Amino acid sequence: MIHTTPIQLRFNDADALGHVNNSVYFNYFDLGKTDYFRALHGHNYYSDPIDIIVAHVEVDFLAPVFLTDNIAVQTEIVKIGNKSMTLQQQVVDTENGSVKCTSKTIMVGFDFEKKTTIAISDKWRIALDNYNSKQI
Amino acid sequence: MIHTTPIQLRFNDADALGHVNNSVYFNYFDLGKTDYFRALHGHNYYSDPIDIIVAHVEVDFLAPVFLTDNIAVQTEIVKIGNKSMTLQQQVVDTENGSVKCTSKTIMVGFDFEKKTTIAISDKWRIALDNYNSKQI
Amino acid sequence: MIHTTPIQLRFNDADALGHVNNSVYFNYFDLGKTDYFRALHGHNYYSDPIDIIVAHVEVDFLAPVFLTDNIAVQTEIVKIGNKSMTLQQQVVDTENGSVKCTSKTIMVGFDFEKKTTIAISDKWRIALDNYNSKQI
Amino acid sequence: MIHTTPIQLRFNDADALGHVNNSVYFNYFDLGKTDYFRALHGHNYYSDPIDIIVAHVEVDFLAPVFLTDNIAVQTEIVKIGNKSMTLQQQVVDTENGSVKCTSKTIMVGFDFEKKTTIAISDKWRIALDNYNSKQI
Repeated sequence: MIHTTPIQLRFNDADALGHVNNSVYFNYFDLGKTDYFRALHGHNYYSDPIDIIVAHVEVDFLAPVFLTDNIAVQTEIVKIGNKSMTLQQQVVDTENGSVKCTSKTIMVGFDFEKKTTIAISDKWRIALDNYNSKQI
Repeated sequence: MIHTTPIQLRFNDADALGHVNNSVYFNYFDLGKTDYFRALHGHNYYSDPIDIIVAHVEVDFLAPVFLTDNIAVQTEIVKIGNKSMTLQQQVVDTENGSVKCTSKTIMVGFDFEKKTTIAISDKWRIALDNYNSKQI
Repeated sequence: MIHTTPIQLRFNDADALGHVNNSVYFNYFDLGKTDYFRALHGHNYYSDPIDIIVAHVEVDFLAPVFLTDNIAVQTEIVKIGNKSMTLQQQVVDTENGSVKCTSKTIMVGFDFEKKTTIAISDKWRIALDNYNSKQI
Repeated sequence: MIHTTPIQLRFNDADALGHVNNSVYFNYFDLGKTDYFRALHGHNYYSDPIDIIVAHVEVDFLAPVFLTDNIAVQTEIVKIGNKSMTLQQQVVDTENGSVKCTSKTIMVGFDFEKKTTIAISDKWRIALDNYNSKQI
């Protein structure tokens, strides 16, 4: 189930070309990801230790975002494998639904104390199942 | 020929996890790209209209960057096709040469007035040839 | 009349000390200012040329902002003189009303074409009067 | 003795008005401050616990900074009192010496564990004396 996070644009998100700088999209995707993970894990999101890390990101820039646009980030985990999971996101114009930018992120299980990759824990599968079933 | 741009880290490039936030890498790649294009085009870089646009970016995060690290971005155009060109970049630790992060960027020719894609102009091929031959 | 703008925190607003970096408060004040000016001027905000410039800012940092805080910026023009006007702002915790940070900004009339200071135009006095009378 | 830190501008330091956004100056002042404190304290800068906190900042914006400018931040502690010290900084154009922006920062002694203000420790007075005498 896709999770939607409205984005509050900041004046200096735009660069001298007059539209949102490419690098700022990653802040938007980050906002969407954090909001989604909070929705998945509830209050445990803050108490549980972080157990994943971003390994790979791919982004397609389709159309510029202007400061007068109203946008949101849509986020969804589309696959949970053994050692990694895949997140799909897009920046959309909330007025006409047009897609500004899409991204795919690969996250891998990570133990920050031992500094080593680990399996994706079952809490992710359970949280995702609960979240998806709530939406039906 | 690879172009190297040392990066000046800012204290708030790091996030609450204590290392450089993933989204900030794109600022570093942007610094490397701008510096490289300036080296390719010389003083024309500022006077000529912009004729390319970023269409796709892929990034692999290999190791965290800390505020006490000394880093640089290495940049190179690895392919110029008819309507697009490919840029490869990596963030390296300048003390031990270890690679922190690699990226591939696809840029396409773009006419900002007509808002339409165009062929990559020959000025890019000429500038790249000149730059590469200077290095030998 | 004080105008209130809720702020959407971004993960990398916080620095390695774990709370919002001092420099980011200025982005928050900017969000509050833009939102307030839009409320004052309505649709003219986008069509009219910019006719003021920030000359001086003073900030008092009273308490740290954490990523789990809910905050808003409160903004008010407290004085319009001949060549300058004064804006007061504060960052508040919307749950308990505690004040995190206060600021005072002096803006002066400015003609961007002639690059010279000018008097504050009457449109500011009229917009402020209208805005304040609407609130009663 | 004034300490000078050259600043590496980033493309998205500039906003849609085409010059460096006011909020970004605080990143520059931060770069200058960090660099200066490192020069004062040497390797202890990283090992010693932080014992000061920014309480108040005042900034005067005198002239815009453009992306093609070469700038540096000049920093100096101008006063160490019992519970606070005063830092003066300015952003200068390194080609013609013109001043873009000046700032004054009040920092107070702070114990981060007890979360209470404390006296400025003598290590600041000693470090400043050593730094200033080295310059003569």
